[in-house]
Amino acid sequence: MTTNISEQFSVTSADAEGRDVLRDLYADWSQIMAATPDLTMRLFRSMFDEWHQPTVEPEGVTYREDTVGGVPGIWCLPEAADTSEVLLYTHGGGFAVGSASSHRKLAAHVAKALGAVSFVVDYRRAPEFQHPAQVEDGVAAFDALVASGIAPHNITTIGDSAGGNLAIAIALALKEQGKRGPGGVVAFSPWLDMENKGETLVTNNDTDALITPELLEGMIAGVLGGIVDPKTPLANPLHADFTGFPRLYVTAGSVESLLDNATRLEERATAAGVDVTLSIGEGQQHVYPFLAGRSALVAEEFEKLAAWYRK
Amino acid sequence: MTTNISEQFSVTSADAEGRDVLRDLYADWSQIMAATPDLTMRLFRSMFDEWHQPTVEPEGVTYREDTVGGVPGIWCLPEAADTSEVLLYTHGGGFAVGSASSHRKLAAHVAKALGAVSFVVDYRRAPEFQHPAQVEDGVAAFDALVASGIAPHNITTIGDSAGGNLAIAIALALKEQGKRGPGGVVAFSPWLDMENKGETLVTNNDTDALITPELLEGMIAGVLGGIVDPKTPLANPLHADFTGFPRLYVTAGSVESLLDNATRLEERATAAGVDVTLSIGEGQQHVYPFLAGRSALVAEEFEKLAAWYRK
Repeated sequence: MTTNISEQFSVTSADAEGRDVLRDLYADWSQIMAATPDLTMRLFRSMFDEWHQPTVEPEGVTYREDTVGGVPGIWCLPEAADTSEVLLYTHGGGFAVGSASSHRKLAAHVAKALGAVSFVVDYRRAPEFQHPAQVEDGVAAFDALVASGIAPHNITTIGDSAGGNLAIAIALALKEQGKRGPGGVVAFSPWLDMENKGETLVTNNDTDALITPELLEGMIAGVLGGIVDPKTPLANPLHADFTGFPRLYVTAGSVESLLDNATRLEERATAAGVDVTLSIGEGQQHVYPFLAGRSALVAEEFEKLAAWYRK
Repeated sequence: MTTNISEQFSVTSADAEGRDVLRDLYADWSQIMAATPDLTMRLFRSMFDEWHQPTVEPEGVTYREDTVGGVPGIWCLPEAADTSEVLLYTHGGGFAVGSASSHRKLAAHVAKALGAVSFVVDYRRAPEFQHPAQVEDGVAAFDALVASGIAPHNITTIGDSAGGNLAIAIALALKEQGKRGPGGVVAFSPWLDMENKGETLVTNNDTDALITPELLEGMIAGVLGGIVDPKTPLANPLHADFTGFPRLYVTAGSVESLLDNATRLEERATAAGVDVTLSIGEGQQHVYPFLAGRSALVAEEFEKLAAWYRK
């Protein structure tokens, strides 16, 4: 089922303004990266931790730092949430940047919308740690949640960009290991294609404010280290066997370069019999749910996601 | 009254480890500033927004973005707090960097310890806006709180570093304007001396991991713009008349370069008849309350502060 949520309601001017906040941040980062060819990974990480800025602080959510399965992270605890339902959130940032802090507000908004709690993991990042360290950390956190008494089907793996890749890879790894997997998987603007090909890298190159093939190339080198085959299914789920995979909810922005990571994922998973929902945000940038609390379109998207989740 | 809280209990090894987290962050920033002489204000701000990292997420606190008196900021709302008691928190960062986001967790810890709520203001920063824009924003927020029904004596102005300066300057400005001021003023490691002199700039130069006279010189140029007299009392409260000033609680680290900003403040305010409490954290760096949630010494400090607050 593919729907275009812009068809369901009119985008208000306030919403258009909200959308600009994310695009402007991306444009600013892009300008800095272009102007600072020797930008260190240290400052690259500092800059990308600003990813929280477009997201408005969600009301009625408390937080708690914890370590789950040896992996540090932040619990987002909406006041009335069902604590037996857990969103295991893996943040984006090309496996190299981003953090539980940069994604705390986003993960809290999603938890609130779904009536669950979320745990945003600070998995080991590249290039210090290469694939499959990130997947292993996600699986370790999942296993620890189950060991603590959370039913696997009450866990949803969820993430954005590279973290959307991880949300899928964690479920694939659990299946490989013969374990019961999550009840569902959610991926916002997943970045999957480690071969770095795909039409929308070209066709949306002028409209995407952040993602370029060159940026992705650097991230691929960091996480695969020139050693891991870019077709490895747990690194590149576009090459995975989706037989028996959980229900899958995918979003992407219509103007983003990674759009056809989402559409190719939908095709492959659907072909394997997976129940896939793909929602394209018209005119939206990479990981537009970062506009939570600011954008009517994201509020609408989260209502759709909540309806899917409760089904 | 001057006390040395290290005399009140033994510093544990966990606490020493906690202390290192802040010192290591400062040392890292200092290394980056030294290695990047052309570091832009844009990336300088990005980097300093990491100031939240040493602070552990406080549990049981929710947040709400708001605009008070035209000034944006974040409410920190501990679950059982008295919402009629407000800490008006002005963040540090040389008037130029830092934000409500970088200080959210710290302001939330203090609110929780004091049984009040805090509002961390994103005042207009230098060099885009020079003195007295920052003081004006603080006064505007204070006035709006009073207009909303909060009793002036139930407001505490509080801040760290340059924000400690502002917490004091806001109270001084209200007095100048003939308005009722806050019930108390709290300053963590206040930075007051816009003439950039003081013994501990020299004597603690080797132990302070962040502050150097050169860094301060740049910040002074930014906020005073080479126009404002560095002895202006609202910019440099070491030259202010403290007659009739509210109760004042001041902390500073024993090894920090700005230590004698705190001690000179205590002398001047005490001479004017103000009820001043000065608490020196032995071996501690600039704004060591950033270690809240991690350091036993900070927990002890906040207990002292709470006892002072309730008096």
